Amino acid sequence: LIRFLTVKNIINIIAEIGLETCFIHLTQLLQQEFSRWQSFEKMPRIASHFPYGVIELMPIHDEQFYAYKYVNGHPTNPQRGQLTVIAMGMLAEVSTGYPLLISEMTLLTALRTAATAALASQYLARSNARSLLIIGTGSQAEFLVLALKAVLNIQVVYFFDIDQRALEKFARNLMGYQIELRLCNDVKKIIKKVDIIVTATAKKGQTLILENSWLVPGLHINGIGGDCPGKTELDPAILRRAKVVVEYLQQSKCEGEIQQLDEYSCVELWEIITGKKTGRESNDEVTVFDSVGFALEDYTVLKYFYNLSKEMGIGEEIDLIPKVDDSRNLFSLLCTRHPKFHN
Amino acid sequence: LIRFLTVKNIINIIAEIGLETCFIHLTQLLQQEFSRWQSFEKMPRIASHFPYGVIELMPIHDEQFYAYKYVNGHPTNPQRGQLTVIAMGMLAEVSTGYPLLISEMTLLTALRTAATAALASQYLARSNARSLLIIGTGSQAEFLVLALKAVLNIQVVYFFDIDQRALEKFARNLMGYQIELRLCNDVKKIIKKVDIIVTATAKKGQTLILENSWLVPGLHINGIGGDCPGKTELDPAILRRAKVVVEYLQQSKCEGEIQQLDEYSCVELWEIITGKKTGRESNDEVTVFDSVGFALEDYTVLKYFYNLSKEMGIGEEIDLIPKVDDSRNLFSLLCTRHPKFHN
Repeated sequence: LIRFLTVKNIINIIAEIGLETCFIHLTQLLQQEFSRWQSFEKMPRIASHFPYGVIELMPIHDEQFYAYKYVNGHPTNPQRGQLTVIAMGMLAEVSTGYPLLISEMTLLTALRTAATAALASQYLARSNARSLLIIGTGSQAEFLVLALKAVLNIQVVYFFDIDQRALEKFARNLMGYQIELRLCNDVKKIIKKVDIIVTATAKKGQTLILENSWLVPGLHINGIGGDCPGKTELDPAILRRAKVVVEYLQQSKCEGEIQQLDEYSCVELWEIITGKKTGRESNDEVTVFDSVGFALEDYTVLKYFYNLSKEMGIGEEIDLIPKVDDSRNLFSLLCTRHPKFHN
Repeated sequence: LIRFLTVKNIINIIAEIGLETCFIHLTQLLQQEFSRWQSFEKMPRIASHFPYGVIELMPIHDEQFYAYKYVNGHPTNPQRGQLTVIAMGMLAEVSTGYPLLISEMTLLTALRTAATAALASQYLARSNARSLLIIGTGSQAEFLVLALKAVLNIQVVYFFDIDQRALEKFARNLMGYQIELRLCNDVKKIIKKVDIIVTATAKKGQTLILENSWLVPGLHINGIGGDCPGKTELDPAILRRAKVVVEYLQQSKCEGEIQQLDEYSCVELWEIITGKKTGRESNDEVTVFDSVGFALEDYTVLKYFYNLSKEMGIGEEIDLIPKVDDSRNLFSLLCTRHPKFHN
């Protein structure tokens, strides 16, 4: 029997260990997995584009585990009361090919995206960073803010959105989290007061959420919302000026903010983590983490929740593997149950 | 909630409609789907090769449905009492990206492989074909024989294997199916008596299950067991002499029997089905269906069982889609359940 984690199972696991602890663990695990980058067989995700959205498969493996995620992105789903992104994933054992875990990954994707931004920020934000501005308070926003708070010492969060209800939702959800929340009406003005900016808008197309002329020295930017061909948030001048870190160049050059550039000298996250390249080099440097989401992050969160589910005894078991006495006798499964074969 | 089909659900559905009817329907549906070949976005499967096996993802879609299968192939699994092949798959709605069905596919793969061979044989075997020889009586054998019997008028089945227990299992499973079963001790001799040959051995490497000099005019061969790089069953001289039909050339040229050739003039199955190319042209022609298994077959069997499961009310429902009032408020799922966040 294979382990299956439902949405409710994931909620219960997070409730049990606590979201802050979850983010701290996940950031540590991501650091460990990214530091053994060469152990993984990697490929850009396999995307199918439609007029109304995208469907992707994201596989990766090392010598022990094979992981993949199915995920969509349909920006008009909310108009019909549906989620933009739904995801599910599998962790399998490489030595036998047998699935170990099937899990919902809509929540897990939000967790791993946020934890990866937190990990990158540990290497790229100034060590005395205390405040951030988040632009776009949609479905990823609270996860991003709380992950950054969990691993850095964030005390003040400015938040901006063009949608009043998204602002209210964000503020309501984060009440009680010991964060000083400050509504931002003027992005350009607030930028001067913050150490970190997170851009996480849902808008399709090449938008200019941040202009280069607005920036001040020392900023770190987590660019989350530029994540597929044709969808970017940052002024390309920022990318030319800043140290830009990506997850996996081969994928990011098509999907990330850097798709706006003809040439780039960016660094992969694992290179900073292993010390092959340097992260932030001065307090004046502007840095960008150009996040698009990579299969290694799914691998990490699946392995983490697989272990948690075993330790905590949370999860369902599903009947996905045929049980036969003789492995060559698959047909025996049908032998007692085909009364109508002869018609 | 998403529909989920367990191994037991699949067994119950097949029992309800009858295996023969199931093969007849599936062959008809495959014919319909292959005949609209141009409607599908296709790619060769994404294979990860390991010392002990292979793990694959097989995606495909048209404008309405996206389907993929996860499947492994680990030839040494039976030594530990495990199955060589385990598969699971998903059918999703293209317009929203939402999953519709998750299903076991170990059984469904056996069904669709057999039905596709039956479909190809309808176009390639002589119309008066009554007898077949199957070489290799492993886990796929009974499915292949019964699918061919369901759509052609097969009355006599000769069967050969080097493993006595596999022969016994095969004969036992097919008792009562109104087939005249004849044990074959000498392949070369029996070939002269049959109309169709099915090769379905599990042996890795480039083997010579069938030699060209043994063949007689008019034979149709379903080559099932040559299905990954380095694994073939047929004498390459057969492929040079015969009309060879493949599912999808881009995939088959790496995985099928035709990987043994430097140049090939083979036909894709859909071309014969749509009348673009001719199938069998004379009673003397030797024909080969070089089957490796293609994602369109998984798409077809998933759609068929999705509809059956709805009509028959068989299947589980699983909690894989987060339920939120406001699609931007994914975080609300965690709002009532994070007592430990503040530690």
